[in-house]
Amino acid sequence: MTPAFSLSTFRSSLRTAGRPLSTAANRFRLPPTIRQILSSSQVDEKVAVTGWVKSIRKQKRIAFGVLSDGSSAIGLQAVFNEELGDRVKEITNGTSVRVLGNIVKSPGSGQDKELHVQEVEILGACDPETYPIQKKALTPEYLRENTHLRARTDAIAAMVRLRGLLMRGLDRYFEDQGFAYAHTPVLTSGDAEGGGEAFRIASIPPSPDHVGKDGPPETEAEREFFAHPAYLTVSHQLHLEALSSALNRVYTLSPCFRAERGVTRRHLAEFWMLEAEWGVAPAENPRAQTAALCDFLEGVIKGVVGDPGIIGGEDVNVLWRHREHDYVPEADREKRREAMVRAVTTDSPWPKISYSDAVRELLKSNQAWTFPVSWGSALQSEHEKWLSETLVGGPLFVTDYPAGIKPFYMRANPPAPAAEEVTVGCFDLLMPHVGELAGGSVREERVGVLEASMHSKGMDMNGERYGWYGDLRRFGGAPHVGFGMGFERLVGWVGGIENVRECLPMPRWAGRMLL
Amino acid sequence: MTPAFSLSTFRSSLRTAGRPLSTAANRFRLPPTIRQILSSSQVDEKVAVTGWVKSIRKQKRIAFGVLSDGSSAIGLQAVFNEELGDRVKEITNGTSVRVLGNIVKSPGSGQDKELHVQEVEILGACDPETYPIQKKALTPEYLRENTHLRARTDAIAAMVRLRGLLMRGLDRYFEDQGFAYAHTPVLTSGDAEGGGEAFRIASIPPSPDHVGKDGPPETEAEREFFAHPAYLTVSHQLHLEALSSALNRVYTLSPCFRAERGVTRRHLAEFWMLEAEWGVAPAENPRAQTAALCDFLEGVIKGVVGDPGIIGGEDVNVLWRHREHDYVPEADREKRREAMVRAVTTDSPWPKISYSDAVRELLKSNQAWTFPVSWGSALQSEHEKWLSETLVGGPLFVTDYPAGIKPFYMRANPPAPAAEEVTVGCFDLLMPHVGELAGGSVREERVGVLEASMHSKGMDMNGERYGWYGDLRRFGGAPHVGFGMGFERLVGWVGGIENVRECLPMPRWAGRMLL
Repeated sequence: MTPAFSLSTFRSSLRTAGRPLSTAANRFRLPPTIRQILSSSQVDEKVAVTGWVKSIRKQKRIAFGVLSDGSSAIGLQAVFNEELGDRVKEITNGTSVRVLGNIVKSPGSGQDKELHVQEVEILGACDPETYPIQKKALTPEYLRENTHLRARTDAIAAMVRLRGLLMRGLDRYFEDQGFAYAHTPVLTSGDAEGGGEAFRIASIPPSPDHVGKDGPPETEAEREFFAHPAYLTVSHQLHLEALSSALNRVYTLSPCFRAERGVTRRHLAEFWMLEAEWGVAPAENPRAQTAALCDFLEGVIKGVVGDPGIIGGEDVNVLWRHREHDYVPEADREKRREAMVRAVTTDSPWPKISYSDAVRELLKSNQAWTFPVSWGSALQSEHEKWLSETLVGGPLFVTDYPAGIKPFYMRANPPAPAAEEVTVGCFDLLMPHVGELAGGSVREERVGVLEASMHSKGMDMNGERYGWYGDLRRFGGAPHVGFGMGFERLVGWVGGIENVRECLPMPRWAGRMLL
Repeated sequence: MTPAFSLSTFRSSLRTAGRPLSTAANRFRLPPTIRQILSSSQVDEKVAVTGWVKSIRKQKRIAFGVLSDGSSAIGLQAVFNEELGDRVKEITNGTSVRVLGNIVKSPGSGQDKELHVQEVEILGACDPETYPIQKKALTPEYLRENTHLRARTDAIAAMVRLRGLLMRGLDRYFEDQGFAYAHTPVLTSGDAEGGGEAFRIASIPPSPDHVGKDGPPETEAEREFFAHPAYLTVSHQLHLEALSSALNRVYTLSPCFRAERGVTRRHLAEFWMLEAEWGVAPAENPRAQTAALCDFLEGVIKGVVGDPGIIGGEDVNVLWRHREHDYVPEADREKRREAMVRAVTTDSPWPKISYSDAVRELLKSNQAWTFPVSWGSALQSEHEKWLSETLVGGPLFVTDYPAGIKPFYMRANPPAPAAEEVTVGCFDLLMPHVGELAGGSVREERVGVLEASMHSKGMDMNGERYGWYGDLRRFGGAPHVGFGMGFERLVGWVGGIENVRECLPMPRWAGRMLL
């Protein structure tokens, strides 16, 4: 019999034999990117770069180009001398080249290093007559029609990099707070309460047994791949709650889908959402749970976006300076950017206001609302806009909404002294010029209260469909909270991007899907 | 007019005013998890823990329990004294409790700290008669039927944490190599060449304009949400290639979908795949590109899995020691684990063999194959198994397959001297007991060669459907490579998990989808 596996033996073998990455580093390492060259190369160092020509200015005996490999918002300045011959004449915007040369101190003001090109090879030509990404300003609408090439523009490339930076920052923040990343499913059995917002998976073609035969019609189990209807998830929350009932602190950043016919600058059919669930200590004052939940999310956004690597990075800078579309006057843009930076760098807590107080403020504001304000109705965009942009001029948590306009899983607050209708422990985070960035709640963990809440919405906590959700409370249920944050809206807020279609690489919305 | 936004001004303001996380830390921080308590608490420190009771042993005047909050494979030993009264009697496996107590030095051998409980509150009871997660060994099949609760078992919890650890390790590895994370879409226009493997989104109900009316029948544009058919992606590669043609080094770890009717231990309808694409310098010898691509992937796996935080971590340990199902004899398990550890810690390169040489080895092996071996046919599982398990006894790259059995986008090799049929620059990575873990190729960047390759497979590089893919070559195309790796298969290989259904939290396969 083989001796039992010994952890200490193989740990010590790791220490003695485990230097694969050091000795094999050359075999495993890719050559430096332009970002790495700009940050760490020395003067006179010889480098090789593969990239696209972003611009080239040809003079009689010399040409000045900027090369990009997409690793950085800043390109590499390259000087082509006449010894390089006619090949330089063939270089146009968009051409893919490989260059070898020396890093020298740049005499220009833009950056401190540039490349003296000694060899150049054209990898892929780019016809300047037909190239869709011309140097002139291109409208967002035009670029959406050229989705496959639009990441060659500075702004879209910066947005893609910013998404990756935010994702990494978020993951490190959550890791530090003890969260496990959990991959919850995209395909689900739930149709989001039949609201018609969930995409449905098509039935499968009739099986050969049924083609051209009489006999009984096909059953649902035969028509459906999963033997019952399947949908694309509109939210990972319920599945995350199941994992939170074992792993406690879990989060995910995953695609969600809504078949919404309305086309606005804030909605996509496929979007990404950060969702988190975690257990909390029971609180004497349940409203304190909601406040602590808001505080946690404020910490997430300040901790991640406020990191100088993001807020002070070139990608955010490129996005705010981006002037290819001017929906917003430049002066307003600068003000908005300053407000965003202030929000993530201030020590002051973001204000919180209860729904009831928000309604009072809206009623006494004397605005001419399109939608009337009344306690018990949902807040409309115009109301949210006024609250965050006019009333507080920054991020605002609105808490404790009426139970009647919120989902079944939110925890009922104790009755208020003034005997208003029942409210639930929840919040929406409103951002100026973005609207609702995130929403969350204390989850109802009390078996009896949850059962009644579900019953009042026509759901059966003990039935086949939601019995599993009831089990999470029946077997060692515990107080817990959670929230969801629209990732594209976060990207838009941080980067000052007006339309959510420019907040992810390949947007899909009603009537439109390229590639 | 507002003065232009100054990066240096707000950077310096970050330095002076930017201490939100330090001064506001208490407001933003969650209390320590059991993992954090076990790793950093001091003797006599007072701690509060919320968790589930994994086991409890009651004696006359004292009870010994193990608490888990899912943060760690190791639970917190807790000692309940008689002063705590009758509440301790109510505690059963699965009960959710909140305890306060002192950390003391543990007299037992299992761990060096334990908790002397001073206060205990029962948050959620757990009926021992009906609790689905009993202490006895539970079969994987039983646990799949209880998907919503199965993360309460040690092995499933360890698997979920391992997924998160691998994801984080992979992201840091790719970041270090200059890759941007890119979110490519799940909804796509392509149906994977009509092979019937792609899930299709259902048409939408007839619009009100057409209900109960005569007039022309609905058009496709009216029937489909996106005005044309939409599918769930089977691979993110083509979309990643578009982003790679601007950002160069890009990767994603995203859900993929296949409507495969076959049910095996290696296939799921929804699975996660790591896919990467990046530009490379042109090579005089194209076969060297394939070898470098294999080397890079070997570096990824050795660098990430070989990290002592993963290979030497408790989660991997729990998974390999897991004895609830014994498909594999214990001695074989230990051997497999040692082989896995050796593979990720050795300095020796993983062997590479060309498809042609592999076929020769298979032919002279004198095995009784179910599927005959011949040059030009795909390798079957039995062949792959023999190559990696018997011929080399470890990871094996098989390279340069015949063009006829590979997709259109793989780069044609120069004709071999012995004039076999044409091969393409590609690889499959075969792992013992897993099979194909990853596959990749050099991508065909030459416009004319690609056009001919697509034409030979009935595709039109200049047509409406694939014109965009042609554009990536027409406008500054460059040599590039890429691969895809099945994330669940990686998890299974690292954790010694036999069935891919235990490699993600909520598996879906033909005929089966819970929650």
